[in-house]
Amino acid sequence: MEIHSATILGSGNVAFHLGKALAQNGIRVDAVYSPNETHAISLAEQLNTQAFSKPDKLPLSSDIYIIAVKDTVIEQVSDQLADVAGLVVHTSGNTSMEVLSKHKRCGVFYPLQTISKQSALNFTHVPVLLETKQQDDMALLKQLTTALGATSYEVDSDKRKVVHVAAVFANNFSNHLYGIAQQILIENNLSFEMLKPLIRETANNIQHYNPNEVQTGPAVRGDQTTINTHLKLLKEMPGYAQLYTLLSQSIINTHKEK
Amino acid sequence: MEIHSATILGSGNVAFHLGKALAQNGIRVDAVYSPNETHAISLAEQLNTQAFSKPDKLPLSSDIYIIAVKDTVIEQVSDQLADVAGLVVHTSGNTSMEVLSKHKRCGVFYPLQTISKQSALNFTHVPVLLETKQQDDMALLKQLTTALGATSYEVDSDKRKVVHVAAVFANNFSNHLYGIAQQILIENNLSFEMLKPLIRETANNIQHYNPNEVQTGPAVRGDQTTINTHLKLLKEMPGYAQLYTLLSQSIINTHKEK
Repeated sequence: MEIHSATILGSGNVAFHLGKALAQNGIRVDAVYSPNETHAISLAEQLNTQAFSKPDKLPLSSDIYIIAVKDTVIEQVSDQLADVAGLVVHTSGNTSMEVLSKHKRCGVFYPLQTISKQSALNFTHVPVLLETKQQDDMALLKQLTTALGATSYEVDSDKRKVVHVAAVFANNFSNHLYGIAQQILIENNLSFEMLKPLIRETANNIQHYNPNEVQTGPAVRGDQTTINTHLKLLKEMPGYAQLYTLLSQSIINTHKEK
Repeated sequence: MEIHSATILGSGNVAFHLGKALAQNGIRVDAVYSPNETHAISLAEQLNTQAFSKPDKLPLSSDIYIIAVKDTVIEQVSDQLADVAGLVVHTSGNTSMEVLSKHKRCGVFYPLQTISKQSALNFTHVPVLLETKQQDDMALLKQLTTALGATSYEVDSDKRKVVHVAAVFANNFSNHLYGIAQQILIENNLSFEMLKPLIRETANNIQHYNPNEVQTGPAVRGDQTTINTHLKLLKEMPGYAQLYTLLSQSIINTHKEK
């Protein structure tokens, strides 16, 4: 058994990038569904398939139904979907598989990657966290993941939530720190360009080294003089100063424990 | 005029990587100095040059004297160095050029990159922040920077400190967040491997996009349900929960202002 055809429920970034990747890798996209007809039509055109804005009209013969909508409406969309023979999955990091329990064959296909409108998404080497109610379906999802060039990890709903919170630190919060660094430079008429190689290298380093082993900076050196200079420079930006203090303290605590 | 020869004062990571880069790019390393004789000899062997542990014995004819020691001892090392004809620079982000004022020709050569024992350092495209007391010497340092394949930025001592604090956010603090993500995964028997592509992609994204434009996650979406789930998962790690709250609040504030 293999997955040859898919219906996509949703019209956001994940729906778009996943739909494109499926089509490019020989999996037929039977249909796209969105309650917003304009969005459905727009995505369907890009994927060269049919658009639906009513869930009861959707084709019943797809091998997989991928629900890629906001976490808060996954259950509702799942409940509106007819009893299909195919596998029904959602793509959320923070939502239990249980919300799909209406369907005998259900599961989760969570791509652990940052997916925004602006940036392209290549599924090659993207880790995909998989879960299925029926063990047979796990093999199917693993096949699908491999077909996209992605890497599969079998992770249950509870563990997936833990991964999601770790991803918030590694991705959302570091991106915000990049934004803060940019803001500090802009306010001093300095170019953010000069920080980009450092940001890239910092992320490259931990591909090979343990983050704690390559930690540098005033906090890990216990260099209170530099910390004080920095806090003085941040005195007009109290929010940043507060983050600076808390993050420095966290580094000190982490490295003290060793 | 051009720089053909250098003396390196210091034996740490910056001294080592910079010495190697100079030698590889055809600049003769005349000598290495460290008050710790063992360190001096070890680095001198690697750079195929002479070791000195007394500053008064150092060669007087180098085109440049590079002081790459801890911030707190830069001034002392500078003062111990004889009145040389060559240019005397330090490599610190957070130290004024003034500490070198004993020397008529002085300046700063600050490579804005993360430099740790573990990771190799390739100077290609590394931004180097330059400052000199005499305008003529700026041209010399720019030439040297270009010879190493690096990119030069002319930045005075006050602005350089601002860049340094921005670099702490972009590098030291994001690396610490990677460490926190790893710790959260380890405590739940999950592999840090699955987060590495996300970390790389997050850093790649901002090479082309404004960090604030590619910000994702529960905070920027105003998704309080997910935030609460995450805080519950972090309840056994109060330090991380506190950082989670403050960083989320900072994201909310940043994106509210727009």
